[in-house]
Amino acid sequence: MITSTSNNKIKNIIKCVKSSKERRKQDVFVVEGLRMFLEIPEEMHVETYVTEEFYERNRQIFEERQGFHFELVTPHVMEAMAGTKTPQGVLSLVSQFHYSIEEVMSQKNSQEPLVIALENLQDPGNLGTIIRTAEGAGVTGIIMSRDTVDIYNPKVVRATMGSIFRMHFCYVGNFVEWLKEWSDRGILTYGAHMKGKNFYDNDYQKPTIFCIGNEGNGLSDEASEAVIKKIFIPMKGKVESLNAATAATVLMYEALRQRNKQFRQN
Amino acid sequence: MITSTSNNKIKNIIKCVKSSKERRKQDVFVVEGLRMFLEIPEEMHVETYVTEEFYERNRQIFEERQGFHFELVTPHVMEAMAGTKTPQGVLSLVSQFHYSIEEVMSQKNSQEPLVIALENLQDPGNLGTIIRTAEGAGVTGIIMSRDTVDIYNPKVVRATMGSIFRMHFCYVGNFVEWLKEWSDRGILTYGAHMKGKNFYDNDYQKPTIFCIGNEGNGLSDEASEAVIKKIFIPMKGKVESLNAATAATVLMYEALRQRNKQFRQN
Repeated sequence: MITSTSNNKIKNIIKCVKSSKERRKQDVFVVEGLRMFLEIPEEMHVETYVTEEFYERNRQIFEERQGFHFELVTPHVMEAMAGTKTPQGVLSLVSQFHYSIEEVMSQKNSQEPLVIALENLQDPGNLGTIIRTAEGAGVTGIIMSRDTVDIYNPKVVRATMGSIFRMHFCYVGNFVEWLKEWSDRGILTYGAHMKGKNFYDNDYQKPTIFCIGNEGNGLSDEASEAVIKKIFIPMKGKVESLNAATAATVLMYEALRQRNKQFRQN
Repeated sequence: MITSTSNNKIKNIIKCVKSSKERRKQDVFVVEGLRMFLEIPEEMHVETYVTEEFYERNRQIFEERQGFHFELVTPHVMEAMAGTKTPQGVLSLVSQFHYSIEEVMSQKNSQEPLVIALENLQDPGNLGTIIRTAEGAGVTGIIMSRDTVDIYNPKVVRATMGSIFRMHFCYVGNFVEWLKEWSDRGILTYGAHMKGKNFYDNDYQKPTIFCIGNEGNGLSDEASEAVIKKIFIPMKGKVESLNAATAATVLMYEALRQRNKQFRQN
């Protein structure tokens, strides 16, 4: 049992919780809690740490997952790793995913691609929520500009509620070039924009990319010019814009509604 | 100029930032930032605190708002009040709103009532985002169970982006009784529920109440039984549920889509 926070493995976990640079260097990320633990694909699992109390309470789960190497730690060590006062009792180091752009953009379940492209999103909660909602809405994959918040930030990971293990995603170095390329290749690219046209007036059953911009500034001028169509979500009252995750939700679920004719009785 | 955090007025603001009980007792809440300041209705304004630097930069705004009593404070005092290291430089004390249930539920702009009812929502960011989105979607008002997070919590207020000044809302002591009463009065009450029917199959142009439950547990059994219809948002992949604010967004924007026929070309 690891009893000290100066143990090298523990010190390393704490580094990986805090620093995106460290996570990238080691090609890993950290997930916390039983729910997340149960979703880790075996081939991505590196190591798991559990408190004795948690292990005893969930012994059967650990016995069933023979391939998962784990170590016991004291509650104090778990607290230090999780960075919260009420950690859930299990925390794992997991390998980062590496999807190609083609994997992110390709058809799934014989549906045309439906892709969310995020330019410079900064709020971890927003990114995590978008990933969770995207899986629910049948999105093919998520493309992020290089300056978007790190998808392996623990707050992002937590907000995905496990969807991070299933959603395909990748960062692109030059977001605007990527956008132009796929616009040229015949995918319909839409940018959320104050001066756009009502977004309900489009057919999202075709291959679709929705671009969502930064929380404060929206899409950059360059990205807005690179999309085939600027779209606008109608708003009542004096609301000037929706939260980035809210806007993404409205767009994704309208695409899902259109793509699933059985949902379209009204 | 107030230079000390032990000034009684400043001590009182700090109390009101931190404690919902104190806010209720004094019938006030605290808003921060220029954007929020500009939206305060004059009759609700109690007092504003600004740093000298902020005042100089925005002198014209303050000169135009003659009715708004304000005091200068040092940057240090502003930091202590705002509870952040980078406060925006202006912070106001504002009177709480008191809407009757009838004001929350009544027609607006000759549209049938569209009400969001929240049972025991706990996350301030979720509540704030729902209020902002609700205004955008043309929602009539918001009803909250008594155990819902305090709408005047500074995190809620911030996430509303000003919609708190315009959206009608109230807390009800007995949420389930309230729900039964309005179901009996002929409003169509819908509860988001895992075992509900596809939510797209309803006509939300009629008077509508959408009930959203607590983040972890969903709607209580009692509330689920009190609604006229249980509804379910279709989800792909392995997603078991959507975030509470996301689910509310999907419901509210479907109602808006149906209510605005000009948006319905697809």
